[in-house]
Amino acid sequence: MKPIGLAILGSTGSIGRQTLDVVRAHPGRFNVIALAAGTSVTLLEEQAREFRPRYVCAGREAEYLRERIKAGTLTARWAEMEEMVQDTAVDLVVVATVGATGLGPTLAALRSGKATALANKEVLVMAGHIVTQEAKRHRAELRPIDSEHSAIWQCLWGEATDSVERIVLTASGGPFRDTPLHELERVTADEALRHPNWQMGQKITVDSATLLNKGLECIEARWLFDVPLERIDVILHRESIVHSLVEFRDGSIKAQLGVPDMRLPIQCALTYPERIASATVPKLDLRLIGTLNFGTPDMRQFPCLALALEAGRRGDSCPAVLAAADEIAVQHFLAGHIRFLDISRAVSDALNTHVAVPNPSLDEVLEADQWARGFAEDWVKARV
Amino acid sequence: MKPIGLAILGSTGSIGRQTLDVVRAHPGRFNVIALAAGTSVTLLEEQAREFRPRYVCAGREAEYLRERIKAGTLTARWAEMEEMVQDTAVDLVVVATVGATGLGPTLAALRSGKATALANKEVLVMAGHIVTQEAKRHRAELRPIDSEHSAIWQCLWGEATDSVERIVLTASGGPFRDTPLHELERVTADEALRHPNWQMGQKITVDSATLLNKGLECIEARWLFDVPLERIDVILHRESIVHSLVEFRDGSIKAQLGVPDMRLPIQCALTYPERIASATVPKLDLRLIGTLNFGTPDMRQFPCLALALEAGRRGDSCPAVLAAADEIAVQHFLAGHIRFLDISRAVSDALNTHVAVPNPSLDEVLEADQWARGFAEDWVKARV
Repeated sequence: MKPIGLAILGSTGSIGRQTLDVVRAHPGRFNVIALAAGTSVTLLEEQAREFRPRYVCAGREAEYLRERIKAGTLTARWAEMEEMVQDTAVDLVVVATVGATGLGPTLAALRSGKATALANKEVLVMAGHIVTQEAKRHRAELRPIDSEHSAIWQCLWGEATDSVERIVLTASGGPFRDTPLHELERVTADEALRHPNWQMGQKITVDSATLLNKGLECIEARWLFDVPLERIDVILHRESIVHSLVEFRDGSIKAQLGVPDMRLPIQCALTYPERIASATVPKLDLRLIGTLNFGTPDMRQFPCLALALEAGRRGDSCPAVLAAADEIAVQHFLAGHIRFLDISRAVSDALNTHVAVPNPSLDEVLEADQWARGFAEDWVKARV
Repeated sequence: MKPIGLAILGSTGSIGRQTLDVVRAHPGRFNVIALAAGTSVTLLEEQAREFRPRYVCAGREAEYLRERIKAGTLTARWAEMEEMVQDTAVDLVVVATVGATGLGPTLAALRSGKATALANKEVLVMAGHIVTQEAKRHRAELRPIDSEHSAIWQCLWGEATDSVERIVLTASGGPFRDTPLHELERVTADEALRHPNWQMGQKITVDSATLLNKGLECIEARWLFDVPLERIDVILHRESIVHSLVEFRDGSIKAQLGVPDMRLPIQCALTYPERIASATVPKLDLRLIGTLNFGTPDMRQFPCLALALEAGRRGDSCPAVLAAADEIAVQHFLAGHIRFLDISRAVSDALNTHVAVPNPSLDEVLEADQWARGFAEDWVKARV
């Protein structure tokens, strides 16, 4: 069997590294054609030596990499992300970048008809209407990597689109699920980074503590599965074993379960429609788990979830503002400049101030993103 | 859309009546072509007046029905089950008979290429090797009706056969799941009939109390899904919300959930591959359920489960002996002739005495069935 040609954008981040773990675990099955990373250029260099891609691309420390290539110590060619994803040797593009960065390469991948596995939430949150339209127009396949969306995707295999009644995303509730509202004002960045179930990057871990991440996931699900937000629910499930559920018209519900390990949904997106054994990931034994709990998230305790759902319902340029304002606010929370509940305040103020642009073009989306970043920076400055 | 032509065998039993509930709830979608019942001939007569089938057939009180037809007060024609299922107007045969009765009509249905929905466990338990072979040969579709097998079936839609690693059947544990072993000796038929989650016929309710039913289901699953018994597990799940699970090669698990109401899996088998709204069945809300529990069944507390799995592993004519000896023993338990734990003793003695017939023909299966019935009757007589 011919190896699957991969372009991995964001290869030095948490999802990127785990994608390479999956590649490593299955020698001969994948062929890494291209690697791109925004930061950690020395790790990118290491990865390039190990996987010998045809192309590499670096963000912040581009010069360092360009010099290595020029000096001949790296055999890969430099290419911009939009260019590398279009190479004929690439079968599947893994978009594991962060923020708005993934938008251009995702559109380039879809427009050249490549199957595209998305881990970069903002791509769909900011421009779901454009991305899904391009995917349809070029008959390019969008595959989810997020554990929740992978779960929904798997539950939908073999089902007719009009059979779906409701999508139910599970949320662990993060580190503060049992923290009373009045104590949330004083929680620290260290506490917010202690996710009970998942090992993830810092930004998404804080978003999991505010539950804003779950709101972003609802918006993503709306685009990935073409189901309106009104038919997408969030349910608390502290064990992170049931990764999400789909309810069908006849009342039947399907759920996907597994140990909380991102290598499972990553591998699923990489090898679809085949399922291959993954020796490195432990199996789930429900008898040992014993109990699975479910409940309703309290919107007062998690104002960011309510804000995200509201931004999703308003649509237009609002989700872009939500995501950008949150990104800046989380950075400042991690740096100790603002408090935990300030994240929701900054995001709320940004959304309330923003004048929504209806059915925005890509440029208008990026403008809204820039505006929200500026707004959030000013918001923080005014408080420090 | 042309209505789906149904032959319903065992129309007056629990599954048969609920099948007609589903038909009633969706006017114009189904056309009842044939009804057959072993007992309750007056109910069968009522059903025939309501649904106006082309054919009827009765077991014990055949004369009563034949006279009504002769007198012209019933417009249906008499036909044997093997004959009625072959009518060209029949698209789907629902086999909801009990015991060995369903075997002949199931084979007749499959041989005429009809889609066949099976609720009659013994058909596969006794003759799975023959039934699945005939289904394959005549490209006739076998659909499960049991909630567990329907769950597995639904989880397998859109999946490749070689992706399956393991099938996990859930068992509520029945009314005695919390009863200490030493108290099981003294439990009454009334207590055994109080199933905590499901409304079912008497025989299957007692089989659910001994967990022999779960063993029969494992054997059924082995044939329906072509997975060896070694890769079929039973897991205790007291809420009967997760109806069963499938584990795939990559460690991903899919589960099907729903309220415990047989009309859901029945409707699923009737309308496949379509899913249609069922206004009559309440929706499941996991937030209200709150907790789902899972555990390991204790084989000492449920010797019938161990016996059934052992009979399944031995194969050949052993499962037929298991099912037949159990049927007789349960009858005598319900009549108060023997005690609860005597059921497993009678079945165990039958299995130990039986000389297995390798790869039995249909006649040899029916012989083993007859032998086991006689053995169990004698076993009970020797004790009363």
